[in-house]
Amino acid sequence: MSYDGLKQEVFRVNRAIVDAGLVVLTWGNASGVDRKQGVMAIKPSGVSYESMSADDIVILSLETGEILEGKLNPSSDTPTHLVIYRAFSEVGGIVHTHSTHATSWAQSGLELPCLGTTHADHFHGTVPLARLLTDDELDSYEHNTGEVVVECFRGRGLDPSSVPAVLLPHHGPFAWGPDPEHALQNAIALEQVAQMAMLTYSINPSAPDIPSNLLEKHFSRKHGESAYYGQREPSNG
Amino acid sequence: MSYDGLKQEVFRVNRAIVDAGLVVLTWGNASGVDRKQGVMAIKPSGVSYESMSADDIVILSLETGEILEGKLNPSSDTPTHLVIYRAFSEVGGIVHTHSTHATSWAQSGLELPCLGTTHADHFHGTVPLARLLTDDELDSYEHNTGEVVVECFRGRGLDPSSVPAVLLPHHGPFAWGPDPEHALQNAIALEQVAQMAMLTYSINPSAPDIPSNLLEKHFSRKHGESAYYGQREPSNG
Amino acid sequence: MSYDGLKQEVFRVNRAIVDAGLVVLTWGNASGVDRKQGVMAIKPSGVSYESMSADDIVILSLETGEILEGKLNPSSDTPTHLVIYRAFSEVGGIVHTHSTHATSWAQSGLELPCLGTTHADHFHGTVPLARLLTDDELDSYEHNTGEVVVECFRGRGLDPSSVPAVLLPHHGPFAWGPDPEHALQNAIALEQVAQMAMLTYSINPSAPDIPSNLLEKHFSRKHGESAYYGQREPSNG
Amino acid sequence: MSYDGLKQEVFRVNRAIVDAGLVVLTWGNASGVDRKQGVMAIKPSGVSYESMSADDIVILSLETGEILEGKLNPSSDTPTHLVIYRAFSEVGGIVHTHSTHATSWAQSGLELPCLGTTHADHFHGTVPLARLLTDDELDSYEHNTGEVVVECFRGRGLDPSSVPAVLLPHHGPFAWGPDPEHALQNAIALEQVAQMAMLTYSINPSAPDIPSNLLEKHFSRKHGESAYYGQREPSNG
Repeated sequence: MSYDGLKQEVFRVNRAIVDAGLVVLTWGNASGVDRKQGVMAIKPSGVSYESMSADDIVILSLETGEILEGKLNPSSDTPTHLVIYRAFSEVGGIVHTHSTHATSWAQSGLELPCLGTTHADHFHGTVPLARLLTDDELDSYEHNTGEVVVECFRGRGLDPSSVPAVLLPHHGPFAWGPDPEHALQNAIALEQVAQMAMLTYSINPSAPDIPSNLLEKHFSRKHGESAYYGQREPSNG
Repeated sequence: MSYDGLKQEVFRVNRAIVDAGLVVLTWGNASGVDRKQGVMAIKPSGVSYESMSADDIVILSLETGEILEGKLNPSSDTPTHLVIYRAFSEVGGIVHTHSTHATSWAQSGLELPCLGTTHADHFHGTVPLARLLTDDELDSYEHNTGEVVVECFRGRGLDPSSVPAVLLPHHGPFAWGPDPEHALQNAIALEQVAQMAMLTYSINPSAPDIPSNLLEKHFSRKHGESAYYGQREPSNG
Repeated sequence: MSYDGLKQEVFRVNRAIVDAGLVVLTWGNASGVDRKQGVMAIKPSGVSYESMSADDIVILSLETGEILEGKLNPSSDTPTHLVIYRAFSEVGGIVHTHSTHATSWAQSGLELPCLGTTHADHFHGTVPLARLLTDDELDSYEHNTGEVVVECFRGRGLDPSSVPAVLLPHHGPFAWGPDPEHALQNAIALEQVAQMAMLTYSINPSAPDIPSNLLEKHFSRKHGESAYYGQREPSNG
Repeated sequence: MSYDGLKQEVFRVNRAIVDAGLVVLTWGNASGVDRKQGVMAIKPSGVSYESMSADDIVILSLETGEILEGKLNPSSDTPTHLVIYRAFSEVGGIVHTHSTHATSWAQSGLELPCLGTTHADHFHGTVPLARLLTDDELDSYEHNTGEVVVECFRGRGLDPSSVPAVLLPHHGPFAWGPDPEHALQNAIALEQVAQMAMLTYSINPSAPDIPSNLLEKHFSRKHGESAYYGQREPSNG
């Protein structure tokens, strides 16, 4: 049993969130899981992205949170990642950043509406805003941050595969996907649609949401049984 | 008969829209036509710009849409490009992106007004917003997206050579030109004037449109019989 | 008599306005004069910045506008530059761009107020907005663009050395200085203070102008007899 | 006694504020102190960042302001740095910039509120705005700029270790830290949270401040006795 492949992938995505402009200083972390081996790999805490190597990625037990491999402390957000992986079995990678526009939406106290096809290609409707933690919940801050994400999706009947991101009030976004690479792509898409939503309302404060038929059309072009975007099913389309 | 020159040019412009900052992830595609050979060349669908080579560019029949050369699926937006090329014989290249500010205007539901000479140098007046597709039209989404572009220009008596771009509501821009390189330049200009229009209204919500005499002067400096910008006609000007 | 030094300097500044992010496509030009030789050097018209070399810079007579050296057409804005050099003997370099935020101010129809010391370090108060040309004046568009700049400064008693820039309505900025390098620095400063003025009003629509005593203090730190910024007069300050 | 280590560090941070996008032209300076040797090291005045070397860094007596080493004039803001170092013994490095968004807040005449955890991780609450100088105080402009910073913190009972930055009205920000590297990080964080606060209010003009319990939680994750962020105290967290 080796964790090298997982560590390499998680290392690569941690560097990619910096290259994509989503991270300032050390404000971000990416993780991935290997469900067969029952482990999660995550960035070490407070380590600069320049000096980090794949060897610094920390391996923990997905069930207990115990460190299995690695000499450094894992990200302080580790308990949040663990809760999300345990609750959403379809999630294979998670990216947390303080990217500029997604964080500004999170700080605004508003959900991120779906205004166009760029959004619909990645998120099936509004990206929700979780609730604030209570005073008591702040004692296990990072763990309960994961719990309110799960509560938010279950309480509203949202499918984490269809809406692979959430905003945390006064904090910022978490995005995810079936693997770390797709979590990265969703984090990039989230930042971009957050910026465009801000600009759209700046141009027209009463800009309408995307019509539901166009939302369904675009989401289903890329996702589900009838998807025809990309190279999955060769066609003349 | 070889398509190599066309494939090289279309490949180069597909890379250039990324270098110009118009494309995030795989959200964009450029195409070109060779009307003598009756073919269109276009980016493959969902392929990353880093791994793409000129060989991956797909060649289709302009008349039938049949793939003539290439192993990958063409862009899912291929039917839109075909309809535009068939209707507007003066168009030789098309660039579609989700560039930040042009897409935000498209999402706002408003047309892009001409506020200054930067705009007038490329677009002879307002860049129009096409109408939404009906439920029935969504069944052939990409084809009918092209149809509403053509309808928009013909219905308003707009010359696609003078206004080489359109906004699609809740979606984003298409730009074009006599060849892929000029389509690229118009896509870059569109993003820039969309950003400046947004900023202009932010500074002064009642900023006036460009006066018509200045619009005519600037457009005719660069276009038409009396053009004197650039190196076309050596002069002491 | 050789123009090589002047051509090298004007070439360098034409590249620098691109590197500084002030220019998209070919929307900009820089010039310089050698008053002893009675010549102006300027960018050729519509030539891409990548393919341009110092040899492409065009030399014209400052008095007659006749081309003295160079195989390409000079910038179509050449007559504007000539009028400004002839009227303002203290100007040795001019930079014209369509830089994003300065152009947005020009499009807004408002002057650029002095809100802070960044502005005051370069411009002694408001950067003015020239008037629109009349229909008749548009016949000699570029020449009369220079004339309204001169009229604007003389009519208001503005010193072009103290306020080395102007906004042209529905068009964009011209900046200048005692030589091309300082014209470049003023063009960079103008874009930056235009952006900050837009953001300042976005944060607080009733943000006040800089108090006059702080304006005088900062401008005189860098300019005039009592200047003590930089390396001019060694001190223990 | 050698100042080489301090000069190297101060040189590196002066270059880093440019690389971080905080500085346009020469609008910024960083300094550091060695309290054992009683000296301050600071950037020379008006020197370009490209041509500057570590040898150009100027060493002054922290007590008298006398130049001890260096051939160039120190930054014209030197007296401001000296006053802050003398008053706040916990400060080991200072960074002054005209970074775009922090300067826009300073120009707006408003303090920078704490809207989220990104801010709370670096600044324990609102970043204050110092008062304007009086006419008399402008005679010793740079010295008195330092004095109003000290007055601002002492008058409000603010701890400069907990709120390591200030805004100067119509001017821009100063940030500091226990050493030049941390002053740099706080200057970067300040610019980022200033941008996000502007965007947050653009999205929702009545966006609420961060709740006090979340502010305390986040600040104490990184600072003080119970800090658990980073690699200070190995744990399984």
